[in-house]
Amino acid sequence: MSEQETIRKTVGLSLSKDEGLINGGNTVSEDVPDEMAESLNLATVYVSDAQYNRNIFFDTSPQAVRLYLLYNHWIMQMLVYVFIITNLALALLEDPAVVPVPIWATSTIEIICLSAFTARLVHYAKVIPKEKFWKDPKNICFIFIVTLSFIDLTIYGALKAAGYFGVRWSRVLRPLLLVNVTEGRQLRRAFRSIRNALPQISYVFFLFMFSVLVFSLIALKLFGKRGLLTIDGSSYFTDYFEIVFDLYVLMTTANSPDIMMPAYNYSIFFTIFFILYIVVNTYTFMSFFLAVVYNNYKKYLKEEVRQLVKARRFKMCRAFSVLQEAWGEGGELMVSQAKWNLLVKLVKPNISIAHRELLWSVLDDQKKGHIGKLAFVQSCDLLSIQVITVRSQAHPLLNCFPFVYNSAASRFIHHMVRHRMFVYVYDAIILINAVFIGLDEENPVVSNAEWGFLALYMLEIILKLYATDPRLFFARHQFWNWFDTIIVVSALLGTIINSALKHAGGYTSRQILDIVFIFRVLRLVRLVDSIKRFRAIINTLIKIGPTILTFGQLILVVYYIFAMVGMELFKGKIQYFEPNSTRPGQEYCGNPLLKGTTFAKLNYCKNNFNNVVSSFIVLLELTVVNQWHVLTSGFTAVTHVSARIFFVLFHIVVVIIIINIFIAFILEAFLVEYTVDKSDLQTSLEKKIEELGLNVQEDGVDNGLVDAMESCDNELGPNESGKRKPSLMFKIASRRSRTVDGLLQRMFESDLHSEDFDEEEEPNINFSNPVFDSI
Amino acid sequence: MSEQETIRKTVGLSLSKDEGLINGGNTVSEDVPDEMAESLNLATVYVSDAQYNRNIFFDTSPQAVRLYLLYNHWIMQMLVYVFIITNLALALLEDPAVVPVPIWATSTIEIICLSAFTARLVHYAKVIPKEKFWKDPKNICFIFIVTLSFIDLTIYGALKAAGYFGVRWSRVLRPLLLVNVTEGRQLRRAFRSIRNALPQISYVFFLFMFSVLVFSLIALKLFGKRGLLTIDGSSYFTDYFEIVFDLYVLMTTANSPDIMMPAYNYSIFFTIFFILYIVVNTYTFMSFFLAVVYNNYKKYLKEEVRQLVKARRFKMCRAFSVLQEAWGEGGELMVSQAKWNLLVKLVKPNISIAHRELLWSVLDDQKKGHIGKLAFVQSCDLLSIQVITVRSQAHPLLNCFPFVYNSAASRFIHHMVRHRMFVYVYDAIILINAVFIGLDEENPVVSNAEWGFLALYMLEIILKLYATDPRLFFARHQFWNWFDTIIVVSALLGTIINSALKHAGGYTSRQILDIVFIFRVLRLVRLVDSIKRFRAIINTLIKIGPTILTFGQLILVVYYIFAMVGMELFKGKIQYFEPNSTRPGQEYCGNPLLKGTTFAKLNYCKNNFNNVVSSFIVLLELTVVNQWHVLTSGFTAVTHVSARIFFVLFHIVVVIIIINIFIAFILEAFLVEYTVDKSDLQTSLEKKIEELGLNVQEDGVDNGLVDAMESCDNELGPNESGKRKPSLMFKIASRRSRTVDGLLQRMFESDLHSEDFDEEEEPNINFSNPVFDSI
Repeated sequence: MSEQETIRKTVGLSLSKDEGLINGGNTVSEDVPDEMAESLNLATVYVSDAQYNRNIFFDTSPQAVRLYLLYNHWIMQMLVYVFIITNLALALLEDPAVVPVPIWATSTIEIICLSAFTARLVHYAKVIPKEKFWKDPKNICFIFIVTLSFIDLTIYGALKAAGYFGVRWSRVLRPLLLVNVTEGRQLRRAFRSIRNALPQISYVFFLFMFSVLVFSLIALKLFGKRGLLTIDGSSYFTDYFEIVFDLYVLMTTANSPDIMMPAYNYSIFFTIFFILYIVVNTYTFMSFFLAVVYNNYKKYLKEEVRQLVKARRFKMCRAFSVLQEAWGEGGELMVSQAKWNLLVKLVKPNISIAHRELLWSVLDDQKKGHIGKLAFVQSCDLLSIQVITVRSQAHPLLNCFPFVYNSAASRFIHHMVRHRMFVYVYDAIILINAVFIGLDEENPVVSNAEWGFLALYMLEIILKLYATDPRLFFARHQFWNWFDTIIVVSALLGTIINSALKHAGGYTSRQILDIVFIFRVLRLVRLVDSIKRFRAIINTLIKIGPTILTFGQLILVVYYIFAMVGMELFKGKIQYFEPNSTRPGQEYCGNPLLKGTTFAKLNYCKNNFNNVVSSFIVLLELTVVNQWHVLTSGFTAVTHVSARIFFVLFHIVVVIIIINIFIAFILEAFLVEYTVDKSDLQTSLEKKIEELGLNVQEDGVDNGLVDAMESCDNELGPNESGKRKPSLMFKIASRRSRTVDGLLQRMFESDLHSEDFDEEEEPNINFSNPVFDSI
Repeated sequence: MSEQETIRKTVGLSLSKDEGLINGGNTVSEDVPDEMAESLNLATVYVSDAQYNRNIFFDTSPQAVRLYLLYNHWIMQMLVYVFIITNLALALLEDPAVVPVPIWATSTIEIICLSAFTARLVHYAKVIPKEKFWKDPKNICFIFIVTLSFIDLTIYGALKAAGYFGVRWSRVLRPLLLVNVTEGRQLRRAFRSIRNALPQISYVFFLFMFSVLVFSLIALKLFGKRGLLTIDGSSYFTDYFEIVFDLYVLMTTANSPDIMMPAYNYSIFFTIFFILYIVVNTYTFMSFFLAVVYNNYKKYLKEEVRQLVKARRFKMCRAFSVLQEAWGEGGELMVSQAKWNLLVKLVKPNISIAHRELLWSVLDDQKKGHIGKLAFVQSCDLLSIQVITVRSQAHPLLNCFPFVYNSAASRFIHHMVRHRMFVYVYDAIILINAVFIGLDEENPVVSNAEWGFLALYMLEIILKLYATDPRLFFARHQFWNWFDTIIVVSALLGTIINSALKHAGGYTSRQILDIVFIFRVLRLVRLVDSIKRFRAIINTLIKIGPTILTFGQLILVVYYIFAMVGMELFKGKIQYFEPNSTRPGQEYCGNPLLKGTTFAKLNYCKNNFNNVVSSFIVLLELTVVNQWHVLTSGFTAVTHVSARIFFVLFHIVVVIIIINIFIAFILEAFLVEYTVDKSDLQTSLEKKIEELGLNVQEDGVDNGLVDAMESCDNELGPNESGKRKPSLMFKIASRRSRTVDGLLQRMFESDLHSEDFDEEEEPNINFSNPVFDSI
């Protein structure tokens, strides 16, 4: 405690009052002189830009900086996303609509959204210099999209008012706003890496298409004259362009044995042709595509991240030059601890004082009270390492009822909960529960047993809460505790509501029952946490999680564009009628052209482009690939054979390019997770924590957070042994920062370290290789 | 010329007479003293073991060495493979047979094969020390397999003779001979890397299965009570184990939209369940499998290759210690040039003297006439670099008809053939030809045009032969020239035979026509060679090619085992009848149990396990995955639902493990091809070639062999310019050695270099980091 208090005195108590509004809620308070406040604001902007990897060359005048801070305020950013999502969601209301709404309503919403985008852009234009603004392609794109949307809206409105047919073609452009908005950095990067990989991919693709064309020609010559018939009696392999399409589909394996069967039935030797085709095109070329995508993705990502790290260091240098003071005899440029503290307080308002002091003691190893440029630049990375501050507080019950909580019975409960058997017993209960869930729930024994299980689970949570400080149990990173509690409580509530409804009117809501069942089953997932190996895999998955979101956006953009085009092309062509509907044409999806087709036979009528939700589901089915030729055949039957272009294009874009990028990412992320060691900075921070004796001990090989926290819980139990632990302890939350950029930077850190310090943009910086421990 | 002659004198002319039989045809000739011949033989064995990565600890007595040489003789190795293939091919003749043959015949062949294996093993036991022999698991396996086969054969023969039912269960073991034979190193390595990756894969697999089980339970609860029906009217998602199987199939995407449609038709919200399932299990887990396999494959392969390189260097050191002599005052241990020459002559009998001298000049940079241990060890790698010796000889026609060949008309032809337009014109001809091939060949214009095209192609080859030395044109590495000539000549022959038959009896053989058509279409493939980017991709493919063969063997082993088991389980259960056959049951594959099933409806009857060829085709279809659940349903319908185990097991082994390993290999090989620079040794060799002014110039960025050879052809034309080229030129054939081991070693070379020279097994070796240029 005394350490923190000394520090508090040095820094001055004014710090605790510094709470305003800057970049997430704070500006410099009134106690600080004006010019210093301005320079601090500027430095804060640089540092937070460095932290969030923003690359905006804003004006450095105090006014512009204030505008810029407003621009980056989280409320503003959130608003932009709300408007973008609203704009995208308009597709639900516009014709062909899920919920039909008059045109004036959708148009009004769209105009509001577009106006908001324009306002945001004007704001941006005021923040950065004019020439920078007009040079940036994303701004040009943004203006272009907004303008075209306005024009399209006007034309469409006029046409509709005059009673003519109109097409809302600008809807295709909407998802591009997501890409060109200032905050869409990761998405832009993903698109850039795809664009850069395109030439390489296209060479392989053309060679692949050449191979398909040659194979098709051979197929035409081999099978065309033999008069073979397919299963539905049509002629087999007689038309060249049909063969090309069929073989393209075979490459995707979607028509795999069927397309071969007529030839195979004719002669076993013809299978050689198909085996060769599959080996060459399906296996070799598809692996080649993955290899090319992976290779290029890695290469360009590396370059992008290099640029990012460079820019970040440059920004930290700018921040340093704003705050620097000459120090000592040599007039060395340094930043004082007081200023650094103010800065950190502004950049990360929620950081605990203890954490901040810890970081400073890592930076200022020799306790000089000021740091040089190298240390200052590194502080950006240090700030982004998540550190958990563990406070060893007594259990609340110990404070309220010390006598009861320290009694022998209470100790026995503590001992029991922490025993291995406790975990095993509950694993067994879960397994038995699984069997009961599998049984028929209308059996009274089973439905009554459910109450028993619920009681057991609640008991477990209460016991754990009794044995552990609830504040630790519900700490922010305690994923499984939160998971357990939410699931069990929800299941309990659901079951109570359900049985109340049943008793009241004998009526059981199917929906509530569904939800209750799902919660019941989800309880079983906790079993995964009991097995160490599984936990490690799940941790990797959780870490990769946020990055997968970028791919989610990528997929959303591509799906949206294809859905818009698909809806214009195919809306209303295929209808789905409820099974008990009396309208005719149920067996051929309301379109006589589909009579007798496989599409109608397989009852695919609901796979249509009649609204944006069905469109997305069809596109998902196309992404999964299987039966995509049947879906395609349905849509070509109701329009024209050239509609195949749409589906083949979708296959090329989504399956060959985007899914491969997804796999490439998972592959790279996985390899990084398993091979890259923690960074130097984390090591130095951990070393410092250990040096100060404030480290939370880990309990074995698994480096998962949950482990560490659990072992910490155990040690913090009430007076188990005589030794006193320090009142504050630190733990590095995860070995890797959880942001996308953080993961990417870690990926290539080893390659980046040395070179990036050499070729710094500012001439007066001359870093050596940053071995942090030596500072 | 003079250089070579000097060298020839130094070495002694006796060299040119050294032709005997050792390790590919040669032993030391009689001119060399006996004890020296022995030590040379021993050194040769060490060096060629190092070259072929053989790890056999043979006896070093002269007798054992001779036996060992015989053991490694290519005829012996070939014979072993002939017997193995014969043994495997017996499946074609054994019941259920493609060509039925009496049991005594197959048994006799099998006994011969087994005896041959036994003889080979006895030979091996004589070569290596006893304790080594019994410690080697592959020998134990081999003995085990052979013994079991004999026992099985006896029992089966006895049972059959007595008229009982018998199962040839030992046939499952046959492909394992391929793995446990001394030469199956690469295959063993592949199996080892799979075995090592298994624990990791199994953790992910169990987690994946857990996820499938949980999803199935949710599905049961959500859909089971709703009374939904599938397309064929059966109940939907009511039986837990059926759901598990269906969802497993959904993970493979084989039943993708169909399984979802009843739920989707009921409510659009149920698609969320399936989307979530596909995202989690199909995309995330499958990428995870690939990542785990890739990661482990890479890790263990690296370790294996490290061991390999270590062993190779150790063997080279042994060879050095056999040949070493004290030299100079310091008594440094060296190997003289004469001895080295003898050694090279024995190891590589076909090496040209010029090439050998080139290698020596790289090794003995300071022209001392002897080399040290480091250089000697490196010579193994040097020898494995393929060097093309290009002799600038005059065109044979120039020798015969110098006047005609040097005439203006002749020069014009030379000029024409070498002109860019010549290539373009022929590319255009190929494209026109492609259109003609696509047209109906019964049209007389088209069939006559074929003669014209044939004439044009023949003309091209003749013109090229006229302009280029035929010996260069048909050099060993001139892939496309060979390809062209073979294809064109075959097409010509086929067309002639075909029209001869037609004119003779009006009868056209369909088979000949097929072959002629295929050759015609294959001519188009040459277009790929005209486009530089395509050529680069094809070159990469060709380089990866041999390594893919290892996977071919791997697949063969697994397929064979599954085929044998499948034949025992399912033979005769499903019958295929020719469409015009009069036997009943054609529409249900001869088995009433299949009446009305999708299997029968899709006419899959020929997909059965009734002989080894159909079994392989079914297994291939299962590997491609699409419709595998339909195939499975057919086989379960005729046997029992537990037959699914066979198909799921096959899916896990082949699709999840082996196909992923294949992709991992392609990925790694591709990345290596694109990123790894050529090794130090090749650089030093190239530098030497350049130093001597004997390099063949390349014509641009593309480093393909074909390029270089073509440019060399151009420059070697008759007296185009006045300058004389050296009469002998060298070119490094490919930047990477083409053997599997070579490629693998290049993969990890950068990591291996430093460490492996440090931890050498023999204590007296102390290599520094081998920077070859400094020798």
